Amino acid sequence: MFTLYYAPHTCALASHIALEDAGAAYELKRIDFGKTEQRSPDYLAINPKARVPTLITPRGVLSETPAILAFIAQSFPKARLAPIEDPFAFAEVQAFNSYLCSTVHVAHAHRMRGYRWADDPTAIVAMQKKIPQSVGACFDLIDRQMLRGPWVMGEAYTIADPYLFTIAQWLEADGVDPSRVARVVEHRRRMLGRPSVKKAIAEELAC
Amino acid sequence: MFTLYYAPHTCALASHIALEDAGAAYELKRIDFGKTEQRSPDYLAINPKARVPTLITPRGVLSETPAILAFIAQSFPKARLAPIEDPFAFAEVQAFNSYLCSTVHVAHAHRMRGYRWADDPTAIVAMQKKIPQSVGACFDLIDRQMLRGPWVMGEAYTIADPYLFTIAQWLEADGVDPSRVARVVEHRRRMLGRPSVKKAIAEELAC
Repeated sequence: MFTLYYAPHTCALASHIALEDAGAAYELKRIDFGKTEQRSPDYLAINPKARVPTLITPRGVLSETPAILAFIAQSFPKARLAPIEDPFAFAEVQAFNSYLCSTVHVAHAHRMRGYRWADDPTAIVAMQKKIPQSVGACFDLIDRQMLRGPWVMGEAYTIADPYLFTIAQWLEADGVDPSRVARVVEHRRRMLGRPSVKKAIAEELAC
Repeated sequence: MFTLYYAPHTCALASHIALEDAGAAYELKRIDFGKTEQRSPDYLAINPKARVPTLITPRGVLSETPAILAFIAQSFPKARLAPIEDPFAFAEVQAFNSYLCSTVHVAHAHRMRGYRWADDPTAIVAMQKKIPQSVGACFDLIDRQMLRGPWVMGEAYTIADPYLFTIAQWLEADGVDPSRVARVVEHRRRMLGRPSVKKAIAEELAC
């Protein structure tokens, strides 16, 4: 049994979908960012980074989306969520997820979490101004060169798919014209047809 | 045979050390950031992200430090660079590396690469001003809660060690007082005693 700490509309959705895809037994615990529960002593004792997702496993605590996704894929090999028997193919999946984590999500984060990197309010506004360009450039690259189709890695669905889907949900709010990245939008639509995605989204909104 | 594209004083050093640790056969190719070679058509054809490291393998091209490090560990199991047979322990290593990649390195990058996230020159100065605080907070967390000692994961040296070492080399330039993170500095010193680290640093400086 796993416990996933999440907040709605965050990257925790990727791990949530992957748990569904894996057929894992899990329970959800919602962290209310509006009440800054992520900074409560109880939550900091679990995840001192004050972020979601956090996955509680029988062996201990995991954080960081790429690590959690790889863990789910390796722990549920029958679900075939990554080519775990092939180090090169697995590394390709991990490289994609690492780009999402360290470049795409980071570009996006400058819209609402600029305070992490500057104190000056005008600097924070300047960061927000650049979001359509910086996030847009990331998605251009994904659309034109990285997304193989129909899934991220080609014919096989992997843990890269729920992660791309999750971050691509923020396109419009980030000011990126979806018509500019038609293949990403098509991937998003394809994901929305999966029962695991529907269930994860419904659960997050119902809590 | 592998080819590692690198630039001196970048995170590519982590992959370079890991190749040494693994006993891999590799050659180095230096990308001159001063001449913006990372944006040359030749290099963009290899890595459209215009960054280092890039690892050319017999199977194809890999980028992103966490993915390259995991690939090296899985491709050279005898070097025992990660607990690859244990999904949870492997995920702990990956979670550490993901934090370095998406939070610590990103905080640091606001010192010299602020143009990625804002155009306004005063915003870029505001970002630089916060580096000691933002990078310092990351290293406080690593020093107090994440670095088990003597190596990142405890008794066993893993791919988390060259990555931490690489980023910890930038502490002073980032304006973080090293005495504040004594355990990280001790880890850095321990790493400098390893032949693989000495060789990788000497090779990068000699090219």
